[in-house]
Amino acid sequence: MIKFDFKTYVEPFIEKEEYQKLMSKKEDVMQQLQKSGMAGWTDRISNELLKEIKETAKQIKHQFDCMVVIGIGGSFLGSYAFDQMFKNYFENKNFEVIYAGTTLSSKYLDELLNYLKNKNFCIDVISKSGTTMETTITYKVLKDLLKRKYEEEELKKHIIVTTDKKEGILREEAEKEGYKTFEIPNNIGGRYSFITPAHLLPIALNYDLDDVIVGYYRGKRLTDQAYEYAVIRNLLFKKKKYIENFCVYEENMASFTEWLKQLFGETEGKKGVGIFPTSTIHTRDLHSLGQFIQEGNKILFETFIKVEKQEEYLEYEGTPLQEINNIVEDSVMKAHYSGGVPCLEIILQELDAETISTLIYFFQLAAAYSGFLFGINPFDQPGVEVYKKEVREALGKE
Amino acid sequence: MIKFDFKTYVEPFIEKEEYQKLMSKKEDVMQQLQKSGMAGWTDRISNELLKEIKETAKQIKHQFDCMVVIGIGGSFLGSYAFDQMFKNYFENKNFEVIYAGTTLSSKYLDELLNYLKNKNFCIDVISKSGTTMETTITYKVLKDLLKRKYEEEELKKHIIVTTDKKEGILREEAEKEGYKTFEIPNNIGGRYSFITPAHLLPIALNYDLDDVIVGYYRGKRLTDQAYEYAVIRNLLFKKKKYIENFCVYEENMASFTEWLKQLFGETEGKKGVGIFPTSTIHTRDLHSLGQFIQEGNKILFETFIKVEKQEEYLEYEGTPLQEINNIVEDSVMKAHYSGGVPCLEIILQELDAETISTLIYFFQLAAAYSGFLFGINPFDQPGVEVYKKEVREALGKE
Repeated sequence: MIKFDFKTYVEPFIEKEEYQKLMSKKEDVMQQLQKSGMAGWTDRISNELLKEIKETAKQIKHQFDCMVVIGIGGSFLGSYAFDQMFKNYFENKNFEVIYAGTTLSSKYLDELLNYLKNKNFCIDVISKSGTTMETTITYKVLKDLLKRKYEEEELKKHIIVTTDKKEGILREEAEKEGYKTFEIPNNIGGRYSFITPAHLLPIALNYDLDDVIVGYYRGKRLTDQAYEYAVIRNLLFKKKKYIENFCVYEENMASFTEWLKQLFGETEGKKGVGIFPTSTIHTRDLHSLGQFIQEGNKILFETFIKVEKQEEYLEYEGTPLQEINNIVEDSVMKAHYSGGVPCLEIILQELDAETISTLIYFFQLAAAYSGFLFGINPFDQPGVEVYKKEVREALGKE
Repeated sequence: MIKFDFKTYVEPFIEKEEYQKLMSKKEDVMQQLQKSGMAGWTDRISNELLKEIKETAKQIKHQFDCMVVIGIGGSFLGSYAFDQMFKNYFENKNFEVIYAGTTLSSKYLDELLNYLKNKNFCIDVISKSGTTMETTITYKVLKDLLKRKYEEEELKKHIIVTTDKKEGILREEAEKEGYKTFEIPNNIGGRYSFITPAHLLPIALNYDLDDVIVGYYRGKRLTDQAYEYAVIRNLLFKKKKYIENFCVYEENMASFTEWLKQLFGETEGKKGVGIFPTSTIHTRDLHSLGQFIQEGNKILFETFIKVEKQEEYLEYEGTPLQEINNIVEDSVMKAHYSGGVPCLEIILQELDAETISTLIYFFQLAAAYSGFLFGINPFDQPGVEVYKKEVREALGKE
């Protein structure tokens, strides 16, 4: 279902000895992951929980016009990526899921309030700690709107809380008010939380969770490939390839590259190291960043995510359009490689829920391995606290 | 209307002597721009042309449900950025402009065809050369749809061609068929073409062109600031700050950062040099790339685009939301600076058509100056041809 080519346009950039040396550390790195206490995302999700998520999704679709997900970072990027990737470009044929809590824009929130005024909506507020500023503000603003619309007993039915099992202000409030709750386990960090209710509930509104689950755990078969990917990235970094550009050939996949940016950026960007993740949407961005990649500063390598077949079918002068798209992909790899840019390729047979879930597991595994290869903890993000401290001081709360 | 701070979070990274040296080259660089033969975008657009664009826009709005812009790279990024930046997040209150020709996705084109089936639409096909592959394919597919819907005489009214004055296959076809045409001047390159009909016609459908024109040429007053910006970027590059991250605090401005990426990436990325342009949308991406910027590999600097006031007005616990957004911006600059990241700031009093047009002129000027400071031609893009040659060979057309 997923194939990899880490050789054709990469090999000359990699020294064999270095490669062998890192490859031989595999057992050690795998053990580090198992010992980390943060590998909950490699465990099976329980059937009871899956059933509960499906049941809740069914009720939401039955009772409401739309659901607003309030979450930021690891609390929304997974389900958002998934949701965007398969949608129709021009008509929303899905049950409507709105993402909020990702901005402090007055314009955004104001227009959201106007839009929701006459809708029968519910909210799913997602925060492990319960203290995320954007989440808190958005939740307050939307709860106020609900309060203006509904009496106390009815109000309760419109709020779902996804948070820590025991701790935090959101958990406290949910217990007190009797809101429906879901739990984010302690041994799964935000950017690795795809397989938790934080993402599975919004996804269940429009997709078959069974496909997601089957696909996700199929990722376990890609352990070797994930490790090799981590090794090659590490070696390219040592060759001063400081940027990884993820290339996709379908505009809807832009959201998936945003998920990738958090996964790798937040996992690796510590102690002065890490590969800076960026993305280009082709063929669009070949006409904007293509020049730089071909002839500019040689500090990057690329990872292409190719989709072999597409369901929709159009021809141009007798050639299927998807074939032209794929020919361009091959040509771009060849051209960029000739310009000194190593190109890795990940080939999906089809762009569907199952395959993408497999890919998500693969990338999570690769990111975790990569952290250990860099000698950093793949599961913390101490640097995010620095600006938050400044904000608290500026707002006079310290 | 626009203020700049290139000092507070930058100065310690800049050596005074180097700075003075580059600053003293100003006259020389300005002369290079004037002598380039490609500075048509600094000249006044004629009143006759403006009138013609406005008149055409008025007719389009009167006759059609929507317009499809077919263009890629410099043929769409400017008007697209403009269009996205001011739109309502949840309800389209504008005359509908659809952007196509930016992808070879079968899914996108198939869904576009379905969407347009029952619409009374016109198309504006934009390509200087007339040979851009994505444009050609999309134009053919949409013209076929129009042909199925209309007789020859009616069909003509649905097509506008924006291309070279004399040359190319599109010009030829337009003259033969009697389509309405607009011209892209020879002394203006794609990424500098905001002030041409390529962008002004789509913009005129929803915005007052007079605001755009007034704002744009007001940019001439920012010559000194644009030059200083180019100088500082150049010095940061020499300090191995290889990535420029453009930060915006309004999700709608994401499209503007895409325009910036082409402008700087395609202008500078040559002969092994250039600053790689990337972007983060705050506060969203503080929860994804924030960790890396704070503590990861120190190869980047940031340019913040701040909006002081917003029309919409919401409060949180007595503080206007936009004030909180701005407090976060200041805190983030402080935090990232303390982590070794130089931060430049551009402050817009308001986010409106006039201000953004001024900013566009400013950035174009800075990009051109920057090219000359790097010792490269800011107006060509030879590297884009490399993959196109591969594509032609693969498609068996050579």
